[in-house]
This record gives sequence, C-alpha cells and structure tokens, in this order.
Amino acid sequence: MATFVMQSLGCEVAALNTVNFSNHTGYRQFKGTRATAQEISNLYQGLCQSNLTDFDVMLSGYAPSAAVVEAVGAIGIDLQQKAEKKPGSFFWVLDPVMGDQGRLYVNDDVVPAYKKIIHHADLILPNQFEAEVLSGIKITSLATLAEAITAIHRIYSVPHVIITSVQLFKLSTSGSTPSPPENFLTVIGSTTKSDGSPRLFRVDVPALDCFFSGTGDMFAALTVARLREAVDAAGDNLRNTRSWVSPDNVPSSQLPLAQSTIKVLSSMHSVLERTMEARDAELAKDVPAQNGDVSAEEKQKREHLRRTKAAEVRLVRNTRFLRDPPAQFQVQEWCKEDLPAQLQ
Amino acid sequence: MATFVMQSLGCEVAALNTVNFSNHTGYRQFKGTRATAQEISNLYQGLCQSNLTDFDVMLSGYAPSAAVVEAVGAIGIDLQQKAEKKPGSFFWVLDPVMGDQGRLYVNDDVVPAYKKIIHHADLILPNQFEAEVLSGIKITSLATLAEAITAIHRIYSVPHVIITSVQLFKLSTSGSTPSPPENFLTVIGSTTKSDGSPRLFRVDVPALDCFFSGTGDMFAALTVARLREAVDAAGDNLRNTRSWVSPDNVPSSQLPLAQSTIKVLSSMHSVLERTMEARDAELAKDVPAQNGDVSAEEKQKREHLRRTKAAEVRLVRNTRFLRDPPAQFQVQEWCKEDLPAQLQ
Repeated sequence: MATFVMQSLGCEVAALNTVNFSNHTGYRQFKGTRATAQEISNLYQGLCQSNLTDFDVMLSGYAPSAAVVEAVGAIGIDLQQKAEKKPGSFFWVLDPVMGDQGRLYVNDDVVPAYKKIIHHADLILPNQFEAEVLSGIKITSLATLAEAITAIHRIYSVPHVIITSVQLFKLSTSGSTPSPPENFLTVIGSTTKSDGSPRLFRVDVPALDCFFSGTGDMFAALTVARLREAVDAAGDNLRNTRSWVSPDNVPSSQLPLAQSTIKVLSSMHSVLERTMEARDAELAKDVPAQNGDVSAEEKQKREHLRRTKAAEVRLVRNTRFLRDPPAQFQVQEWCKEDLPAQLQ
Repeated sequence: MATFVMQSLGCEVAALNTVNFSNHTGYRQFKGTRATAQEISNLYQGLCQSNLTDFDVMLSGYAPSAAVVEAVGAIGIDLQQKAEKKPGSFFWVLDPVMGDQGRLYVNDDVVPAYKKIIHHADLILPNQFEAEVLSGIKITSLATLAEAITAIHRIYSVPHVIITSVQLFKLSTSGSTPSPPENFLTVIGSTTKSDGSPRLFRVDVPALDCFFSGTGDMFAALTVARLREAVDAAGDNLRNTRSWVSPDNVPSSQLPLAQSTIKVLSSMHSVLERTMEARDAELAKDVPAQNGDVSAEEKQKREHLRRTKAAEVRLVRNTRFLRDPPAQFQVQEWCKEDLPAQLQ
C-alpha cells in the first residue's frame, strides 16, 4: 500500500519490508514471516555500502518487535546525522503502530522502544489510542485531545503531529467548537511554534460505513508526498529549514501540514468511496454454493473471508484520485478560545 | 520493477518475492536474503486458505535455486488445474531467467528444473542465450533462430514465445529479410498454429548505448498487461480460448502477442530514452571529492557504483509512457521465404 501510493505520486521508493505475509491480518489468518532486526539492519548496510542512502524522506510503519523498532530507529537516526549539515534535507515520518480502539496489538516492550526514538522524528501519526499511550493522557474531550497533542510536542520535541481518525462526536466538546455530525471522522494536526506551543487544525470528513485495511499506510504515504509538495509551495526557504517548521506568523490553517492533510483526505475519501461501491457490487453477487457438510463455524469463517476480500482497497484502478484529488474538504483552525483554559 | 509496472497498468498484484536484496546485482555488491522454496510455498498456502487465488495471470521471474523454480512451478500448475474448467481464465507468463551473453548465472540444476515446468506455461520470454539453452540449438543466423523457436514450441508445447533482444546484425541473414542497422535490437515472437508450427513476427527497435537493470522484468510485466488487452481486443472469444491461441487465419503481424509487443517496446523505449537523458545529466555533475588515500581499486569501485546508480531506470516519474505509449514501432511478419528451407 505505502510503496505503491508513494510511487504513484512520483517518489522513488526503497522499501524495507518488516513483514512478508500472504495477506493482511484483517483476514484473521495469514502465513509468512516477520523480518528480524538483523535482516533490517543488514539491508540498510547494503544500501550504505553502495552509496544508496540519499533519501530525503523516510516513512517508518509497522514493526513486528521492539528489536525491529530499534533497528528502524537506528536507520532514521543515521540518516538524520548524515543530513545534519543540510537542514531540511531529511525528514522522518514515523507512524507509531501499536494498537487501536483501546488495546495494544504489539508486545508491551514495543511501547518503550517507540518512546525512545520518537524524539528523532519530524512528524508522527498516532491514532487516538496511540496518542493516549504516548502522552499518558486519556482523550475524553476536545480539551484532553489538545492536552495530549501539547504533551506529545513537549515530551518528544516532535514538531509535527497528526492524530488520525478521532471520533470527535464521542468526545464532550468545550468552547465554541461545534461537533461534527455522528457520521464524520475528524483528523487533528499541529505544528509547533518556536516556543513549542501547538498550532492546531482540524479536518472533518464523512465516515464510510466499512472497515478497510491499509488506510493508515495510505494516509502516511500520501502525507509523505503531499507534505513535501506543500512545503515547496510555502516558500520562505522552508524546505531548507530544520524539520520544515513554518515561521510563527503562519496560522494553523495555512500550515503545509494542514494543506497537505486536506489533499490526503480527499484522495483517500475518493478511493474509499469507489471501494465501497465495488464492495457492495461484489457482495451482491451470489455466494458460491457450499458443500452440505460445512459447519456453522466454517460458514461464518468463509463469509468473513469473502467480506474482507470484497473490502480490499481498490487502489490501482483509482490512482487518478491519488494524483488529482478533488477539492472537497476544508481545514478549520482551532482558535484560542476553543482550547481549554490552561492552554490559552 | 515488475510489480509497479503491472500496478501502473491497473493490475491488482500479489507479489511473492523470491529475493529480498538491498539493491540490484548490477552494483556487484548487495546484502539481503533469498527466499527458500518452503517460504514461497508457505505464502501460497496462505493465499489458498483465505480464497485469494483467483488470479487470471501469473508472471514468474528470477528464482534463486532449483528448489524455488520447482516451488513456483507447483504454484503455476495448481492455478492451472483450478482454472481447468474455464479455458483461458488463467495464463502463465514464464521468464526462464538463467543467464545471458553466453553464460549461466544460476546453478546448473536450475536448467533442468525449468525444463520440467515450461510445458505448463502459456508464454515464455527467454533471451537469446536462454533460447539456446532450452532448444539445444546454437543461434548463429536467422535460420537457426527460427529453428530454435520451432524447437521450443515443439519440445515444450508452449504456444507463445518471445525472444527478447536478439542482436540480429551479428547473425548471418538468409532469404530476403533485411538486417536492421547495427544499432538496433530485434525482438522475435511467435504463436503456434493448430498444427504446432510457428507464426513468427519481429520488431526492430533502436538500441540505447547503456546497460539498464530490470528491463527484462519491465518487458515481462508490460507484456502481462498488454497481451491481455490485445486478446480482449481480438474478439473471436479468444479470452475464453485455451492459452489465448488465435485461429489459424490470423497472420503473425495481427497476433495479440505481436500487437502487444509493439506497445511494450514503445513504452520501454520512451522510459529508457528519458533514463539515458537523466543519467547523462547526473554523470555530468562533478564527482564528489574523494579522500587522498583512496586506492585506485576503490576509486574504480566508487565510479562503478556512481554510474550504476545514475543508470537506474526512471520509472515512477515516467508512468505516462507505460499508460500511453507513443505509436513508434512496427511489426514485420517473417514470411515463408525468409525461413530456412526445412521450415518452409
């Protein structure tokens, strides 16, 4: 998912696969292997010895163990050191994949491994649960959401954060920020000012009534391509500025991160809408006849496999929406009065 | 290379990687791992158990050992059996990667492993050397080239063959077929008639003065997409015909395989021309200063790495040429009088 999306947007990608599975885990069964830390480090050494490390962005995603998180972290840190004399020439987007919906799906030791490396990243992309884990703050309201982002900026000195898919309507609101309707998802992002305080923005998008696998990687990969583009468009020599942090006078809605996020979400929504249509058409077909002696459990399993396959993201035939997202979403600034009192 | 090219042309790809290297072997050094036969079979079992094997085309390429050739062969044979009741619903493109320029670059036991599975394939894509190995005929002239293709059709019952990159000007000509100028490469293909005899066509393309890595995979992947398209365009219910073999009245230049090959070569030539330009621009830059104490050998190695990197195929920013190849090449039939006497 991530490799093809970045390539479709013109990025030359060197992919280090951290797993090599027959299918995504949404099927609830798979075969294949996980990369070891040694294998990841070894591949990177191969790139180093042939002078193939002139990357300007690194995207790191799911890692199957704490040791692999460390190995990936060592690569990010090495690339950052190599780029030290040219500010902005290397940018690390880190997706701290740890869990969702209130539970970890990695080993416990992966959490401290991420906590050690995140302060080297330029942008992190936690979901709501991961933001709670990293900030130590339970997100139950807009106020605690803002607190969590502020804490993440402060604890990890990470200049850019996007919290992907917050179910804002489930949170209690504060101040004048209106809640979006129930069938919307909200993405919240922030780039720090020079004093470390957040510049918060939010984008509301209609939620689609379907579970799609790979959307986290799709979001991250689109962000890699679109953020760089927005940074180039921003001028101010931003591309040659450490961590691409905009001057303090840039309001949150005008941040490259905010402008990028609108395009990213538009591409995703367009692709996923078409995926929904194709899924519905697929599921409307007759189910192939089953042998009479199939257990109820087996029938249920087959139906799950069928529904999961039907919901596979229809990416390769919809790349035009990756390249040319329709203008369909807007970014909103989170104004000072919307923030809880202690952050104003 | 192959995965991205097929995806760019709208194919949903499930890739089973037979190697996982840091870089292509043209650099003369690399790190990483080769897949074992067990790993390949295991991934395929994963696809089977979740009903994810509804492939209509399989492309098999480089395999690092005879055991992996067998494992890949077993997958092709299994998919073929599953499709048995629906002729034309599964098509296997097999690139018998064994060597080039007169020498093997795989273990000796890979050759008999390929010879055992090729009769299950629908289309094979040997280069000139591999065609010699498979046919047992040394290709020194147009006559022996035609003999080799005829032999491959006969020995392996394989209905479609393309011999990629023949240096025709080096061969002695026979009959009225004119040789192309020295700076041309020739691609020769054939689809059998119902009596097993070949229908030969040829396409001459200007050669580019550069070694590019991955062009074999690019050719194969483009052929997967374009052949299916040409078969659909051919009508005659060809898509539902076993191995997509055209009726006997279709002349060689009108074969879907021939029509596909023109487009494939046009895409490749356009991408590689742009790669040459980008390479030349890259090599015209100043070489980074080297430390004084670098040995002559080390200098030479670094220069090789630099030149190899500069010649990396510029694919992701030139996908428009994959999607919309300009009409620039023509296919020629090999007429009966061009063939050696015993084949007329």
